[in-house]
Amino acid sequence: MDFEALFSADARVMQPSLIRRLTGLVNQPDVISFAAGSPSAETFPYSRLTEIYHDLATVEKGRLFQYSVTRGNAELVEAVRERTARVQGVAASADETMIVSGSQQGLDFIGRVLLDPGDAAFVEKPSFPGGIDTFATYRARLFGVTSHDDGMDAEDLARRVREARAAGHRPKLVYVIPNFQNPSGRLWSLERRRALLEVARAENLLIVEDDAYGELYFDGVTTEQRSRLKALDPEAPILYMSTYSKTLAAGLRVAWIMGPAPVISRLVLAKEVGDLCTSTLSQKLTLEFLRRGWMDEHLPGVRAFYQHKAQLVDAALHKHFRGLGRWTPPRGGLFVWVELESAYAIDTWPVLEASVAEDKVAFIPGKPFFVGGVGRHCLRLSYSNVTDDNIDKGLEKLSRRLRAARESVV
Amino acid sequence: MDFEALFSADARVMQPSLIRRLTGLVNQPDVISFAAGSPSAETFPYSRLTEIYHDLATVEKGRLFQYSVTRGNAELVEAVRERTARVQGVAASADETMIVSGSQQGLDFIGRVLLDPGDAAFVEKPSFPGGIDTFATYRARLFGVTSHDDGMDAEDLARRVREARAAGHRPKLVYVIPNFQNPSGRLWSLERRRALLEVARAENLLIVEDDAYGELYFDGVTTEQRSRLKALDPEAPILYMSTYSKTLAAGLRVAWIMGPAPVISRLVLAKEVGDLCTSTLSQKLTLEFLRRGWMDEHLPGVRAFYQHKAQLVDAALHKHFRGLGRWTPPRGGLFVWVELESAYAIDTWPVLEASVAEDKVAFIPGKPFFVGGVGRHCLRLSYSNVTDDNIDKGLEKLSRRLRAARESVV
Repeated sequence: MDFEALFSADARVMQPSLIRRLTGLVNQPDVISFAAGSPSAETFPYSRLTEIYHDLATVEKGRLFQYSVTRGNAELVEAVRERTARVQGVAASADETMIVSGSQQGLDFIGRVLLDPGDAAFVEKPSFPGGIDTFATYRARLFGVTSHDDGMDAEDLARRVREARAAGHRPKLVYVIPNFQNPSGRLWSLERRRALLEVARAENLLIVEDDAYGELYFDGVTTEQRSRLKALDPEAPILYMSTYSKTLAAGLRVAWIMGPAPVISRLVLAKEVGDLCTSTLSQKLTLEFLRRGWMDEHLPGVRAFYQHKAQLVDAALHKHFRGLGRWTPPRGGLFVWVELESAYAIDTWPVLEASVAEDKVAFIPGKPFFVGGVGRHCLRLSYSNVTDDNIDKGLEKLSRRLRAARESVV
Repeated sequence: MDFEALFSADARVMQPSLIRRLTGLVNQPDVISFAAGSPSAETFPYSRLTEIYHDLATVEKGRLFQYSVTRGNAELVEAVRERTARVQGVAASADETMIVSGSQQGLDFIGRVLLDPGDAAFVEKPSFPGGIDTFATYRARLFGVTSHDDGMDAEDLARRVREARAAGHRPKLVYVIPNFQNPSGRLWSLERRRALLEVARAENLLIVEDDAYGELYFDGVTTEQRSRLKALDPEAPILYMSTYSKTLAAGLRVAWIMGPAPVISRLVLAKEVGDLCTSTLSQKLTLEFLRRGWMDEHLPGVRAFYQHKAQLVDAALHKHFRGLGRWTPPRGGLFVWVELESAYAIDTWPVLEASVAEDKVAFIPGKPFFVGGVGRHCLRLSYSNVTDDNIDKGLEKLSRRLRAARESVV
């Protein structure tokens, strides 16, 4: 049977993500890896979760393993609403809230419910490949928008929207990660946030606000600086997404979406055919962790863990990367973004191959984070899964490798 | 903002399933409910799962909560392959196997990867709405195929395929549940299985074989009688699906698909954007349950649980339903299917409303299980969540209600 001929048009455009293709390369055991996109398993509160599990199984018995309702366990929805309003400043009613099996599932359902082939979606340069790649499988036309250290350039967004319209693409949504973005670590200024809200309103764009990292801020970052778009403008058409993958435990696969009720109810229909419900066990563990007030106790330690690593990376970059390029000072999240001096035209992709083979040091090259094949002179450094000792050692080796690449280009 | 206008063409055809619409009605606490589609939480081995959880957390610590690879934890894939070959007789290599977050997710990815709008998919009459509704959201054209107590009518399938082609629909797949189907409880004969394989081969159809209930057989059903299509013809283009939702724990959301490597690798790409990975905790609990040999120890008790309930239902039907209609003698699974004497033209949907309101007895009317609005004289009785005492009591009341409806029709 000719299976290729059987595939749907969507399936025919599906490609393994560029980052996935690097998995074998960067995950070798003796490699110092700045490549991981995952949080550190050291931050997951396994003993507290085990205590909860034991208590729940004693009381709930088999019910702990029964199906849940598609929209999410009602008590969890309540606990999520309470904490999101209190901590993230984002208020939503129960019918404006749903649980998903991780943010990636949320992005997929958003693509499914909003994007027809040829529709236009706008993303930061750089942006998270989990968003870019997902929207691309719905055969949307993606437009990269110029972004700065302090956020997306709203004027460029307006230009891209006009460009899309002129080319016959219907503008539908803009996807942004204003707090400590993956990959850039950027924290948007309030001005940039407000400017985006204004352009989105004028252009009738739905905003998809991915706040995966907003709670992982470091000392000195104020609540106001992390103001969620949906808190700044509660009436704007925003799908606000957040997740417990970075704050509690990635492997539980629990995240949530808040937005206009008509869109949420359609996303719930997508979930009804998509997976029926999120793991009941995962939902109840999360619920009980929130109920006991443990999230608020737990998070300062998680922030301190990443801040410590980030400071070591920043110090090592100051020591070894002088003259090689610039980087965003880490203020939260899991990532530092390095832009090499573009004058040298170093392509970080082949550098990675040599770096792993000869130095046993891995990172992620810039290309997968950009729509349209730019960013070859950039690289993402993750500090979540590198031991303290290896940070300076790894970045020293990497700096030598990059300097050598620069020499060979010159 | 006019959200309706923003929705994709797929989203605009999404409808809450008919069964979901009944949820509020049939889930009232004082109702005797033969409506549940879920297995009984009493069969979930919570204390063994708790023991495993404790052991795993002690050894794995935070790693128990980290992301997994998209295709599924490699050790779980191995354990699933071993057991599926040994118990279900279905052999598949690692690259022909993937883990999904429940069978519903598998059906969704199959729809996504195989169905373009207007493509033809063929289903039994009746069939599982989770399949029908999912394929419909991809705007496939669904064709119901005449089915008998001993399985799908292959000649009618061939006719429907020709009909679809003549109408310009491209035949892509046939979806079947040969072992103890939801909703009919039917067990296909070997002859019907072989006839389907033949027609599918002749018509170049991919077979989606959903084996959610194959391990829940009752005494007297032989291994040969449950022969999987993929075991009967290992080279045929079959996507074989099975799940731990009914045998271990529905709320863990762990199921698997086995099929031709080119199709599986495309389904893995759909999962990469769909949810990244299935809950690591769920996967490792399942893996350890298999590894300790507990599944083989556990299943006889699960079978006995359902067989006991099924016998009570069968006895009550013999006692109360004489002359009202016919039903499939339960030989496995969770469901008994009742076809009322069609001469009386009773519509079971309004009967349900009266039955819940006045008798506090619930079931699922036939309509949601049929493509094309037939089956109004049928109903599905689930015995998974009814207490022994309530079975006779509930079915006696229901028989009176149905007899009254017949009188009013006559």
